[in-house]
This record gives sequence, C-alpha cells and structure tokens, in this order.
Amino acid sequence: MNHQDLIAYCQQDWEEYTEHDFVNQLATGDLNKYAFFHYLKQDYLFLKHYARAYALAIFKSSTLAEMREPLPGLSALLESEMNHHIEYCQTWGLSADEMEAEPEDFGTVCYTRYVLDTGSAGDRTDLFTALAPCAIGYAVVGQRLEKWAETKLEGNPYRSWVELYAGEEYQSGVEETIRRLDDMLEEIPLESKRGQRLCEIFKTATRMEVAFWEQGMQAAQ
Amino acid sequence: MNHQDLIAYCQQDWEEYTEHDFVNQLATGDLNKYAFFHYLKQDYLFLKHYARAYALAIFKSSTLAEMREPLPGLSALLESEMNHHIEYCQTWGLSADEMEAEPEDFGTVCYTRYVLDTGSAGDRTDLFTALAPCAIGYAVVGQRLEKWAETKLEGNPYRSWVELYAGEEYQSGVEETIRRLDDMLEEIPLESKRGQRLCEIFKTATRMEVAFWEQGMQAAQ
Amino acid sequence: MNHQDLIAYCQQDWEEYTEHDFVNQLATGDLNKYAFFHYLKQDYLFLKHYARAYALAIFKSSTLAEMREPLPGLSALLESEMNHHIEYCQTWGLSADEMEAEPEDFGTVCYTRYVLDTGSAGDRTDLFTALAPCAIGYAVVGQRLEKWAETKLEGNPYRSWVELYAGEEYQSGVEETIRRLDDMLEEIPLESKRGQRLCEIFKTATRMEVAFWEQGMQAAQ
Amino acid sequence: MNHQDLIAYCQQDWEEYTEHDFVNQLATGDLNKYAFFHYLKQDYLFLKHYARAYALAIFKSSTLAEMREPLPGLSALLESEMNHHIEYCQTWGLSADEMEAEPEDFGTVCYTRYVLDTGSAGDRTDLFTALAPCAIGYAVVGQRLEKWAETKLEGNPYRSWVELYAGEEYQSGVEETIRRLDDMLEEIPLESKRGQRLCEIFKTATRMEVAFWEQGMQAAQ
Repeated sequence: MNHQDLIAYCQQDWEEYTEHDFVNQLATGDLNKYAFFHYLKQDYLFLKHYARAYALAIFKSSTLAEMREPLPGLSALLESEMNHHIEYCQTWGLSADEMEAEPEDFGTVCYTRYVLDTGSAGDRTDLFTALAPCAIGYAVVGQRLEKWAETKLEGNPYRSWVELYAGEEYQSGVEETIRRLDDMLEEIPLESKRGQRLCEIFKTATRMEVAFWEQGMQAAQ
Repeated sequence: MNHQDLIAYCQQDWEEYTEHDFVNQLATGDLNKYAFFHYLKQDYLFLKHYARAYALAIFKSSTLAEMREPLPGLSALLESEMNHHIEYCQTWGLSADEMEAEPEDFGTVCYTRYVLDTGSAGDRTDLFTALAPCAIGYAVVGQRLEKWAETKLEGNPYRSWVELYAGEEYQSGVEETIRRLDDMLEEIPLESKRGQRLCEIFKTATRMEVAFWEQGMQAAQ
Repeated sequence: MNHQDLIAYCQQDWEEYTEHDFVNQLATGDLNKYAFFHYLKQDYLFLKHYARAYALAIFKSSTLAEMREPLPGLSALLESEMNHHIEYCQTWGLSADEMEAEPEDFGTVCYTRYVLDTGSAGDRTDLFTALAPCAIGYAVVGQRLEKWAETKLEGNPYRSWVELYAGEEYQSGVEETIRRLDDMLEEIPLESKRGQRLCEIFKTATRMEVAFWEQGMQAAQ
Repeated sequence: MNHQDLIAYCQQDWEEYTEHDFVNQLATGDLNKYAFFHYLKQDYLFLKHYARAYALAIFKSSTLAEMREPLPGLSALLESEMNHHIEYCQTWGLSADEMEAEPEDFGTVCYTRYVLDTGSAGDRTDLFTALAPCAIGYAVVGQRLEKWAETKLEGNPYRSWVELYAGEEYQSGVEETIRRLDDMLEEIPLESKRGQRLCEIFKTATRMEVAFWEQGMQAAQ
C-alpha cells in the first residue's frame, strides 16, 4: 500500500479537511481576523506537541538511519520555527505573553494527543501514519489554493500563509515525507489487518484535523 | 497537597463540568433522547481507553502493591462493565453493532488521549491526576443531583443513571480512589513546580470532561 | 511467517537456551542448591516485570478482544502466581523478606527491560515476539526433560520444577500462546523488513534468557 | 536533595563503578587490547540507545525550555559523535562493518534498557536520574585518573581516552548536566518516597555501569 490508499480510504473526510471553509476563506481573504488569531495561537501549542511526536519517532527507531530521519525536522521546530511563529504572530499584534497564556483548545488537544497516543501504543509506522494528514494535507491545500479561481492574493492579509504552503520549499519537503511514508508502507498489503488499521489511523487523524479548522471558525462566533 | 487543592485550582472549570446542563437535564428528565444516545455510544468507546489507562498504571508501577491497585478496576471494566454497558444500551434500543460502528467523536478523543498521553509522558501520579476528574466528578454530580430540588426521579427515563452515581457503591468506590490519590499527593507541596504541574493536568482534564458533555448536547441539535 | 521461523532464525541461540546446563542439572538433580536459590529469588523479581509487560500489551491493544487476551495472565500473575512463588520459596527456607530485599541481578535486568523497551518502542506484535522465548522455551524445556534419558525424577529435589513445565496445564497454556502469536505473524512475510526485525527481536530475547540461566550458575561459584 | 545524595546513597556501588579495574588499567596502559576493542564496539551500540533516551526526554517535556535542553546533546550524538566513534575505532583497526555486525552484549542491554524502561515508566526526572551515573561517573573517572599516581600517559595507547574524560570540554559539559539535575531534584526531599525511589534508580543504573565494565574485562578472557 502507499499514501494514496490511505487518502482513498477516507476520501470524504479528506475533502472535508483539505477543502474546508477555513482555508478557502484564507485564500479569498474573507476569514474573520479573530478566527485566524485563534488558529495562530493554537498552532503554536500544536507545534510543541508536533515536536514531541518527532522526538517519539527517534525513540521508536531501530537503526541509526531511522533515528537520523526525524532529527532535522525536530531541530528546525525547536530551534527556529517556533520562534518564527512567535515573530509572525507579533506582526498581527499577538504578543509572546499572549501565546504562552493561551489554554489549549479542544481541537488542538484532539489532534495532538491522538497522534501521540497512537504513536505510543503502536510502532514508528503507526506514528508516521497519524502524522501524515498534517504534512500531506497542508501541501494539498497549498496546491489547490494556488490554482483556485477564487483565490485572491493581491491585498489579501493571509497571502503569506497561502504562499508558504503553496511554495516550492514546503512542497518539496512534503514530497520527501511522502517518499519515506511510502517506503514504510510498501511491504504492507492494503487488505491486511495491519493495512486496514493504518487506514483507520489516517482517517481518524484526518477527522481531528477538521476539528482543528472548526475550532478556529467557532472562535470567531 | 491533596485532591481538594486540585479542585480549588480550577474551581470555575470544575463547576462548569459538575453542574453542566447535560447532567441537570438528566436529573429533571428533560435531556434530549438523542443527546443521551450519543453519550451512551461515546461512553462505550471511552471505557476502552479508560481500561487502557488502568493498564498503563500497572505498567508504570514500581511495587507489587502499586501494581495490584488498578487491577480490580481493570478486570471489572474488561470482564463485566463493558458488557453491562452494551446491555443497558440495548434497553434503549441501541444494538451492539451500532455501538461498534460508532466513530469516536472529538470530545471522546480529547479526554481519553489527553489522559493517556499525560500518563505516557509523566509518571503514575501524573496519570492518576489526569484520571481523577472523571471518578471524582461523577461522584460529585451524583451527590449534588440526589439533593437537588429540581431532580425528579419518578417517571424519569434517566433515573437509573442518577441513582447509579448517587448510589452507595459508586460513592464508596470513589472515596477509596480519593484516598489513594491523596496518598500520592501527600508529599508534594502545592506551591512546588511539581504541584503546579499536577494542578494544570487536573484542570485540563476537567476542561476535556466539559467537551465530553458538550458533544452530547451538540449531537441533539 | 510463524513462531517456527523465529526459532529457526536463531537455532543456535535457541539450543543454548533450551538445552542449557542449568535445566539439565535440574533434571538430573545435580544443580547446586545456591544456584537454584538465586534463580528463585530472581524469578520473583522477573515476574513483576513480566506482569508489567502484560499490562503494556493491554495498553497497546486496539480492539476489546485484543485487550481481553492478556488479562487472565495478568490477573493470575498479580493475584496468585506471585504468592505461590513466595510460598514455594518458603519450602526451600527462603523468607518473603529475603525475596523483597534481593537486588535485581544483571541477567534479570537484561531480559525484562529488553522486553519492556522493545514493547514500548514497537507495537503489540513486537512486544509479544519479545515475550515469546520465555513461554515457548520453558515448554520446550519441559517436553525435552520429560523424555530425556538422564532425567531422574525419583528423589530429585527439583522434581516439581520439571513436572510443572512438562505438565499438561503449562503445555496447553503455551499452545494457546503460540496460536495467538502465529495469528499475529500470519500476514507478515518472513523476508520482509518487518519479518526480519521480529526475528532479531526473538533472537535477542533468546540470548537474554541464556543470561538469565548463566546468572544462576555464576551465583553458585 | 541533589546529585550528591544520590551518590551517597550507593557509595559502595559508586566506587566499584568509578574505581573499576577497567578504567585503572586504561590509565596505566595495561588493559588487554581485546577488552578495549569489545568496549569500543559495545559503546557504539550504547550510543544509539543513549540517543533514544535523549529523544525520550524531549517527548517527556512539558515546556519549550525543557524540550530544548536535550536537543544539542541529541543532535551531537546523531550528527557527529557516532561518526567520530567509528573513525576512532578505525584507528584501532575496527571497521565500520565490524561495528554494525556486533551483537549487543548483556551489559550493554542491561544498562541501556534499564534507563529507557525507567524513563518510559516514570517521568522526565526519573529518566535523567537513570542517565546521571553515566555522565557524572565518567567525569569522576576522568578527574581521578588525571591525578592518580599510577596513571602513565606517556606511550599509553589509551591516552586519548583518559584525556577526553579528564578534559575541560567534557568536565564543563557534565557540570552543566549536574546543574540541571540538581534543579530538578531541588524540590524533592531526600527522605520522601519519591526521593528514595530516585536513589534506588541511581543505584541500579550505577550497578548496570559496573556490568558494562565487567563485560569488557570478560571479553578478554
């Protein structure tokens, strides 16, 4: 099996996630500012647990090569990306103190802890399968919005968000992630119990991503 | 510190949880039937992960005495309570197949995975602190509803739910749980970093319990 | 693949383990009494971590059926077997206090922590593969010693040890364990990366069992 | 409590570890070459699991500051130290292939899996306490050998080993490690159950370090 099988197994949830109003409204520039602020603050909390998941992947590795794979991502997260995130939020007037004081919302807890528990209970392949909807989904969203007729970059306050995920750097990073995932999945038959279990993990993680968009929308109501 | 300190740290969240409309409407008999059905189906999925948390507590024990403490609860869950739950649901017309086919809703994922990840990342005391709002909260709800002026047991379709948690057996079980938790907390000063961290865990788990009630209410809308 | 493939992969280590002088000398009655005492005391410490491994298996289960499988073994260990072990040791003049005061020897740490770490890092199948040499090996030892020409049960102080593992109850319990392991392994091709990794786990756990016999022998020197 | 309490709790084991013949013979230059080769090959396998323990510490962190602490050590291990180790071994005529083909010996399994299981079952403080004998002990060995009357650096084939651990860079790194450990231990009373449990962890890990030296000595026999 490969990552396409995972997506096909939960096509409807996948579309709900990658074609969600939240990202469409980012592309048209119509997203409520407070929905975006909520998303930014929660995304910061999300990144902490995302880094924990990468560390868990190193703990769960058998070979030195496996241990080395998640390291650049983990280093980038802890050494630069979380700081960049704070800086970006400051351009929106959100202070570092405000970020730190923010309690985790339900959608953030849902997705992050689902990934971490799935990784703790399962093996490295289970963990990377639970992490996959995040990386792959944002790349799909980026590609789609770039070509979408209704996307309006000129004067769009969320332009840099769209450009980040549609951009070459992010897209090629995800291609590498997909290649590694497909390597892990290669010897697992889709119809095996193991294959079906991985499909269920991917599907549930995809549903939790929807909860993450939803909480942003609800924050603005 | 003891369990009272944990509750006092998040008094407002605690009240939101233990005085939630969901349980008040159970006591008056006014709860929407579909809200209750949703709750029942999700509670079944919840119990599976609750049993996993008890097993994790055994894994995390140092002494034989510590290992033996969670065993009766774990055995009861896997050997009888989950079957009783299915039987009770059948009295409401929910089949076992329907229970099995139910996908986990967001509130269920939130609470269960938060507990399990907190337990995996922390030690046995962290785990039992994350589990505490469930047991203690249901006992507080039971006591409160039993005395509440608006509670109406006669002809109330949810009567057995109220009586279960107000009942002697459940209440004395929780007293034992509290005694053990207080033993674990006894040597930890409330104002220490460790004490404050445990307060944060209890508070977050309490907020996740609110999400669990909320998802029941939302299901009926 | 199945359990026979695991054994075949490490045939030499397997024989070193199941045909070790320690068990041969139990069968002939020639084992040094202090070697046996050391073994008994360490086996008690071993059982604690063995129970932790069973609890970990429940934590790592996806379905209710999977969660229920290790429960009877876990309950038996914590509720009766550890007490029986203490009683048996008392017939040899080893007091419960002596058992409790015994520090874990290296071979005990090797085997138990290898199993637990392999289970934590991997999934349920990795865990049961690491546990397999213990159950299967003792059954093989029991069968072999029962038929061995040099086995001398009459007047042998270790007779009950040999009879326990050669006995119907232990043998049929292991048959069930093997059946479950083979079910888990069924869909994994021996030559896959996953299959080879499981072979390495089984081989290392088998080598750690040898360390467990060795430490008994060394204690008597 | 602080790290001195941990050492004082197991003074005899600590001396057996830090004044072991293995390191004394390194300082006098008398160590059997094959004992050293065995040590080098096992140390390479040790480093892999040491890196896994650092990753586990990141997984087990609550704050961003906690997550960042083990990262430089983890990066250094995976990006440079393991390669340097291979290069150093090559100067002794041990090929990279030989390193990879080496099975883990019992002492290596003992120490590494004890640390990892203690960390999995406990919290971040338990994990760092189990890791502490390694870092602190090597610094103590380095200091002692540097001043020891019988140490002979001139013409000693193991000179670089002694100089590495006696050197400024290693010593100041360990001072930082000790400062962090003492911060974690500061609010835990030595006589509390938690304090005594940490003493037991440190003692057992120290005993496992002895097993690591021992296996080197035995390999030369």
